[in-house]
Amino acid sequence: MQATVIRGGTVINHDRAFKSDVLCVDGVIAAVGPDLEAPAGAEIVDAGGQYVMPGGIDPHTHMQMPFMGFVTMDDFYTGTAAGLAGGTTTIIDFVIPSQQQPLMEAYRTWRDWATKAATDYTFHVAVTWWDQSVHDDMGTLVREEGVNSFKHFMAYKDSIMADDGVLANSFQRCLELGAMPTVHAEFGEMVFVLQQKLLASGITGPEGHPLSRPPVLEGEAAERAIAIAKVFDVPVYIVHVSSSDGVDAIARARARGQKVFGEALAGHLCVDDSVYRSSDFTFAAGHVMSPPFRAPEHQTALWKALQSGTLQTTATDHCSFCTAQKAAGLGDFTKIPNGCGGVEERMLAVWDEGVNQRGLSPSEFVKITSTNAAQMFNLYPRKGLIAVGADADLVVWDPLGTKTLSAKTQFSKSDFNVFEGRTVTGIPTHTISGGELVFKQGDLRARAGAGRYLKRPAFTAGFDVLGRFSRAAGAATSSGNAK
Amino acid sequence: MQATVIRGGTVINHDRAFKSDVLCVDGVIAAVGPDLEAPAGAEIVDAGGQYVMPGGIDPHTHMQMPFMGFVTMDDFYTGTAAGLAGGTTTIIDFVIPSQQQPLMEAYRTWRDWATKAATDYTFHVAVTWWDQSVHDDMGTLVREEGVNSFKHFMAYKDSIMADDGVLANSFQRCLELGAMPTVHAEFGEMVFVLQQKLLASGITGPEGHPLSRPPVLEGEAAERAIAIAKVFDVPVYIVHVSSSDGVDAIARARARGQKVFGEALAGHLCVDDSVYRSSDFTFAAGHVMSPPFRAPEHQTALWKALQSGTLQTTATDHCSFCTAQKAAGLGDFTKIPNGCGGVEERMLAVWDEGVNQRGLSPSEFVKITSTNAAQMFNLYPRKGLIAVGADADLVVWDPLGTKTLSAKTQFSKSDFNVFEGRTVTGIPTHTISGGELVFKQGDLRARAGAGRYLKRPAFTAGFDVLGRFSRAAGAATSSGNAK
Amino acid sequence: MQATVIRGGTVINHDRAFKSDVLCVDGVIAAVGPDLEAPAGAEIVDAGGQYVMPGGIDPHTHMQMPFMGFVTMDDFYTGTAAGLAGGTTTIIDFVIPSQQQPLMEAYRTWRDWATKAATDYTFHVAVTWWDQSVHDDMGTLVREEGVNSFKHFMAYKDSIMADDGVLANSFQRCLELGAMPTVHAEFGEMVFVLQQKLLASGITGPEGHPLSRPPVLEGEAAERAIAIAKVFDVPVYIVHVSSSDGVDAIARARARGQKVFGEALAGHLCVDDSVYRSSDFTFAAGHVMSPPFRAPEHQTALWKALQSGTLQTTATDHCSFCTAQKAAGLGDFTKIPNGCGGVEERMLAVWDEGVNQRGLSPSEFVKITSTNAAQMFNLYPRKGLIAVGADADLVVWDPLGTKTLSAKTQFSKSDFNVFEGRTVTGIPTHTISGGELVFKQGDLRARAGAGRYLKRPAFTAGFDVLGRFSRAAGAATSSGNAK
Amino acid sequence: MQATVIRGGTVINHDRAFKSDVLCVDGVIAAVGPDLEAPAGAEIVDAGGQYVMPGGIDPHTHMQMPFMGFVTMDDFYTGTAAGLAGGTTTIIDFVIPSQQQPLMEAYRTWRDWATKAATDYTFHVAVTWWDQSVHDDMGTLVREEGVNSFKHFMAYKDSIMADDGVLANSFQRCLELGAMPTVHAEFGEMVFVLQQKLLASGITGPEGHPLSRPPVLEGEAAERAIAIAKVFDVPVYIVHVSSSDGVDAIARARARGQKVFGEALAGHLCVDDSVYRSSDFTFAAGHVMSPPFRAPEHQTALWKALQSGTLQTTATDHCSFCTAQKAAGLGDFTKIPNGCGGVEERMLAVWDEGVNQRGLSPSEFVKITSTNAAQMFNLYPRKGLIAVGADADLVVWDPLGTKTLSAKTQFSKSDFNVFEGRTVTGIPTHTISGGELVFKQGDLRARAGAGRYLKRPAFTAGFDVLGRFSRAAGAATSSGNAK
Repeated sequence: MQATVIRGGTVINHDRAFKSDVLCVDGVIAAVGPDLEAPAGAEIVDAGGQYVMPGGIDPHTHMQMPFMGFVTMDDFYTGTAAGLAGGTTTIIDFVIPSQQQPLMEAYRTWRDWATKAATDYTFHVAVTWWDQSVHDDMGTLVREEGVNSFKHFMAYKDSIMADDGVLANSFQRCLELGAMPTVHAEFGEMVFVLQQKLLASGITGPEGHPLSRPPVLEGEAAERAIAIAKVFDVPVYIVHVSSSDGVDAIARARARGQKVFGEALAGHLCVDDSVYRSSDFTFAAGHVMSPPFRAPEHQTALWKALQSGTLQTTATDHCSFCTAQKAAGLGDFTKIPNGCGGVEERMLAVWDEGVNQRGLSPSEFVKITSTNAAQMFNLYPRKGLIAVGADADLVVWDPLGTKTLSAKTQFSKSDFNVFEGRTVTGIPTHTISGGELVFKQGDLRARAGAGRYLKRPAFTAGFDVLGRFSRAAGAATSSGNAK
Repeated sequence: MQATVIRGGTVINHDRAFKSDVLCVDGVIAAVGPDLEAPAGAEIVDAGGQYVMPGGIDPHTHMQMPFMGFVTMDDFYTGTAAGLAGGTTTIIDFVIPSQQQPLMEAYRTWRDWATKAATDYTFHVAVTWWDQSVHDDMGTLVREEGVNSFKHFMAYKDSIMADDGVLANSFQRCLELGAMPTVHAEFGEMVFVLQQKLLASGITGPEGHPLSRPPVLEGEAAERAIAIAKVFDVPVYIVHVSSSDGVDAIARARARGQKVFGEALAGHLCVDDSVYRSSDFTFAAGHVMSPPFRAPEHQTALWKALQSGTLQTTATDHCSFCTAQKAAGLGDFTKIPNGCGGVEERMLAVWDEGVNQRGLSPSEFVKITSTNAAQMFNLYPRKGLIAVGADADLVVWDPLGTKTLSAKTQFSKSDFNVFEGRTVTGIPTHTISGGELVFKQGDLRARAGAGRYLKRPAFTAGFDVLGRFSRAAGAATSSGNAK
Repeated sequence: MQATVIRGGTVINHDRAFKSDVLCVDGVIAAVGPDLEAPAGAEIVDAGGQYVMPGGIDPHTHMQMPFMGFVTMDDFYTGTAAGLAGGTTTIIDFVIPSQQQPLMEAYRTWRDWATKAATDYTFHVAVTWWDQSVHDDMGTLVREEGVNSFKHFMAYKDSIMADDGVLANSFQRCLELGAMPTVHAEFGEMVFVLQQKLLASGITGPEGHPLSRPPVLEGEAAERAIAIAKVFDVPVYIVHVSSSDGVDAIARARARGQKVFGEALAGHLCVDDSVYRSSDFTFAAGHVMSPPFRAPEHQTALWKALQSGTLQTTATDHCSFCTAQKAAGLGDFTKIPNGCGGVEERMLAVWDEGVNQRGLSPSEFVKITSTNAAQMFNLYPRKGLIAVGADADLVVWDPLGTKTLSAKTQFSKSDFNVFEGRTVTGIPTHTISGGELVFKQGDLRARAGAGRYLKRPAFTAGFDVLGRFSRAAGAATSSGNAK
Repeated sequence: MQATVIRGGTVINHDRAFKSDVLCVDGVIAAVGPDLEAPAGAEIVDAGGQYVMPGGIDPHTHMQMPFMGFVTMDDFYTGTAAGLAGGTTTIIDFVIPSQQQPLMEAYRTWRDWATKAATDYTFHVAVTWWDQSVHDDMGTLVREEGVNSFKHFMAYKDSIMADDGVLANSFQRCLELGAMPTVHAEFGEMVFVLQQKLLASGITGPEGHPLSRPPVLEGEAAERAIAIAKVFDVPVYIVHVSSSDGVDAIARARARGQKVFGEALAGHLCVDDSVYRSSDFTFAAGHVMSPPFRAPEHQTALWKALQSGTLQTTATDHCSFCTAQKAAGLGDFTKIPNGCGGVEERMLAVWDEGVNQRGLSPSEFVKITSTNAAQMFNLYPRKGLIAVGADADLVVWDPLGTKTLSAKTQFSKSDFNVFEGRTVTGIPTHTISGGELVFKQGDLRARAGAGRYLKRPAFTAGFDVLGRFSRAAGAATSSGNAK
């Protein structure tokens, strides 16, 4: 028996906060209450003056990601290990088939890559093209492999972009299967046109990147995805909403009763678009991701949307291209590999700005870093909650601890950090994953292969607490996801 | 030891649904899990094929209410008993001082009246005027009496209406105390002007009532209360939002990150304004309440707002004037006592229209009938959740059971029912209150005086899960409300 | 010398109303003032008790239109003659090249067809595909042929639909040329998907038509066109806005300062979607046009948008397929030729509902039936105004006159009328076109070939009264359109 | 006969721009056309390369204004003379009765003061209290004195503030009379509360002024006035809208079809709130007016609102307190006389920022500086248009001319200028008022007493081009205001 007792902290759940000890036994939370007795041999964590929170869930990462000719620096081991150092104990990564590649083939490839993960993990599967085999593989994935969410890229023309027909087919199929469609919302055709226009006009540096992806193109794509979802009465989740344009599209849909959800990235929340105006190519290119960082008023809009419930989750889109890889775009910003890190810094950055500066309560912090993602993708209450029977994925948080974020000290294998130099207050002192104390005051003890693949059941009307598939009860699978 | 076991049902909490037995011992939930062993002598409730939900919380009732020259038919016993027959196990009633009456004096009067209640209860206290004594009594109420919410009437000119100055003073005081201000949002001066104008033009019947209170006056008052709250950075809760005008005001405030909350009444959700066009005075007058019932598009707006999270709670404003009392307004609609019943029908009406017709999930139903009110007014997790340690307030719900709502068969002492003749599907078969099986398949066993007064602690930054007082941490009392 | 004097009426211009005589000499307004002396031989029109207004401009007609395998019943003569009977003295029709057809070739074809017109006319030219020749022809059309507006169909997949790339190219070209891009805003791919889905589910009758084109698809397409326009800083005009979804998209864009304009059709304003639920195929199919007629709340939204200035113009999309042609869609609603009449009824229907029922002032009526279209498409003040020097296109309007609209009595050659049986109050008693009295109390004296082709200069910054091209002054042609 | 010919300019009207000469004879425009022959003795103005525009109308000035214990520096002569130097040829000033003062008495006082005006002028009359005499005097003013607009202050508690009851009574009376109610929209009670709170907290300098009047209080008051107007179906005009909160309130009302109008001040458009953060009391206090200057995002909102038509007019609230007077508020910002100048700079500032920088077209400039005000307050087409028969009030505008605005060089008698040091491009070279050339390249020849009082007829349904009183035709006076 492996046991850990977290003593003397304040447990923060999404729905209450209370002083309590927490006992973890064999990977599961065995008791929550005052003055718990420690089993013989149990490891004791002193959480006095600290918060004990559900481990973070990052619902948007790309480990070992092949994209634009390169593979990111972090594989499933180093990436999840970096997450543990930042209090994140579960990731949802992406299977991304290339055009014409069978979904199941891509799925098996990614599953294979992920076996070395240090934390639990699961996958969204991208639908990048359409034929009967895609239709059938979606069924197999939902029914046999525990995939309940599919991703659609509305950008990246001539590569993985899903056109309107693919979106329509896939969204309908999601409804049949009780799965959640998700979209990267940028108007890909217009991005392409603007890229060509900018290059033609002589703008070839990283400053061209945000110019080719103005907020209005995110708003438009969000509107389009939401319109398709409305027609079929299927819910939709917008990944990495970065602008007030995107927020407003979601807010309008929600106001008319539509089930639309959205995610904000730690980077978009905390970093603004001034980075692209740097004359240092390495610095500017290091921040190239899509959607790009935005002007400060968009950051304010994202925070307000998290507070109002218009957005529900925070993620990173962790996709750690290094400086040498980014250099491929010297002289042509469209060739800079798109992607930045963050899995290690997300919870710290969101706490520091959200709780310390913008008035989020600790419970709201837990909602947007863990619980909501767990509920959204059907991992709850196994994940996202401190309660008896839940997985022993926990983070002990010192609200007074400080740390300066930097590529120099990060565990991620990349050599760049979009939060470089930021000193935050509020840091994880201990991370417990699957019952193991894997991070202790700076000492990272992540173990390759310790993570498990998480099957996520499809949604069914009676048990979908978010009410997404209620009206489609007949269509969604009826195999219970009650636990 | 008094024990009850609910067997074989599906527990519906706000955040999950799962098949489980529930064991109640001595008024508290002692176990939640499969195949629980029944203690000797335990009462067994068979919940096979049924849902087991937290007992309803009605955050807006007026029992034994003296208003406009009459006292309502239901006192705290008959009113709470009627609630039990409808699955509601907690009410939040109102202490309403008259102009110049000390708050503590009114509070003691209402506390005295309420001792006969059959369910647990607690009070919002109205602030109807202002001087130093009101300021001081608010402090006493919060710190010593467990009152954490204060009500303000923006209507009822020349009676209990709070003018702008009272609102400003009281809202600021609420912030200092960590208490939630709530408002009845109607533009009282304009209602008064319209009443006089209608009477002068010869419109004296109940059809004049809605004409004197158009939706725009609700929207305006909501905007005004929200503006005051924004200036002082205090949260605000709008009671009985009845129109899209009110919903839109709240939605706009929430979109800019303001902490604004709202409540919908079962009546407003299910009954439209055609009732006032009846030529039968008794029928039309029986529906006179403020705000009035609205045109169908407003009902749609309310439902969508509950689904989107713009509104959080459902209530009744139960205020059971009878036909004879309503007759006081024959020939002058402004003299019809304002108020309708509903505590007994709320959960049935909301389920029937919300879950059966408008696609709410069962968990969403629990949120809006119980959990959200408990969180909003700091009764959670003692109320609003089925979990070990919570009060044993439960309702067993048969989603296939049917009932025809009618004054003839109701337990409420009034002789009128705004849901008259409506046959609903989805009814309570058993209600357990404080561990006692007080309603069993139509047999009501409510006991006068069984209810307890509930103290509700003030909100503090670290423990306010809704994030309302986060930025005001310094101001709000720091006495922990963690449990 | 040909002269006409209109005596004793009240002149209604967009900006003022005043009692005055009007003298027309040789096709032009020669004098506006009290007690004008009639030249020898002048025709005298007694306008006592009547309004004298600028002749209507219908900015959206399809005469002699080949579409979906048929040619509409009204050619340029009968169609414009019907317009005269309804007070309309100018039409803007459409040149619609098929895929790969040179624009200039199509333009010449339509110019040839139009020589028989009884009223003045001009053309929007559709951009349905893209290559260098299209780019060049657009330049020729603007610079040499007086075309200052180009149309884009976002619907009609596999036929004349412009994809996102075509829109992007053409909008940019419009900006260079100082021409106005216009769009038919419906999300064509989704319409196609829904059509197939409906047919597959056995819905083959006309009731399937509106189901395949829900309002959200109009809103989405409007958003998309507006997003493209915003990126290039070019104005855009949305034709036949039929829904609150479309109105809201325009209103949001205007609120952020974007130059977006919109048009409502008389049919959409006055007829609702109940027509499609008729069991009479002939009746239901007779109403098939795109976008379809909508539920009444959308009509209200259109009227409010005209009153608030969110929409500026009223048109008809006159496209007069007859019953026999419509029958091609028996058993497959997607084969019903899309189109309805209206050029003859527009002004009567808009007056009756707009002025008589919805509170438009006579000057507002003139704006939305004539002046705004003239300003929008650079025909003003030659058209759209009663002033010395303007073309003598006038209608004398009897606000008390009544007429029952019907296919039986219409001048249009179609055998169907979407306003069938409607009795309106407010009718034209006399229409003067090019100085000729061509309609006199029911007697239509239209003359084939009397109409002239109107060249419409491109917009230039200094002289574009609507401020559309101000910021693009450098790009737009600088050849003056001052007159 | 006194004649002036303006030669060779480009006439800019609200609805067209064209090269033309303009002939003025005896105070009226006698001819507009090319190559006009000059009468013998006519003065010739060379407008080559320049624009000829209708003289500006400033619909919001306070000349010789007694307020907060002082009288402003500019009387009706010096103030209107300063206006002429800036191209403004008509002002609408305010009659402001004190509490209980008969309206007619105040009206006669202001009429008397105004006899020395150098330009034409007219008055809004404020309703600051209510009884039968106010009701009756409003009728007299409309029917006999040519007043068609009444002003209501929602701020300035304990002074001229109109409470909700006064607003309700006066708005209804306006509807009966066919007059336009206007409001200063600030939530006076809350301003008062915040002033006391700020002073109590030790904030006594001018920086307290904007803190006591946050934008949300403007939005709230606008909503309130709009709600009252909606209930009575009367139009309403919001003076000096300064914030996005105010703009949004108007936009929402307009979107639902309500007739709501708004005005922006040149100061609010061009100056931001950083002025209040100056440590120089004289500078900061010199900018104290209500509403205060706002943060830059509000300025953007105002400009967009002018472009979209949400706001219609630009004004100044010219109220020229001097430095010595402002000093009364040393140590208590609530005692700083509220008011700034601007009548002389309005057109230059609006042109420079609006046309040169924000893309307004010259015709849009004419609309918002002249024509719209003329139409709004029934001075059109006598004012606000260059056409035969209109008053000869004109400004010749050199779009390339430059000037540095400064108190040192201004004609206004104040010693302060909120536009101090701003160099603008686009200036008046000649101003013609009542046919007289009163300003010629810096030489001001204003003549005291040259101005006339302008009667403005009430609005009637058939002739109200803005459609404001259409539905109230029966109520509004039917005495024709057609001209």
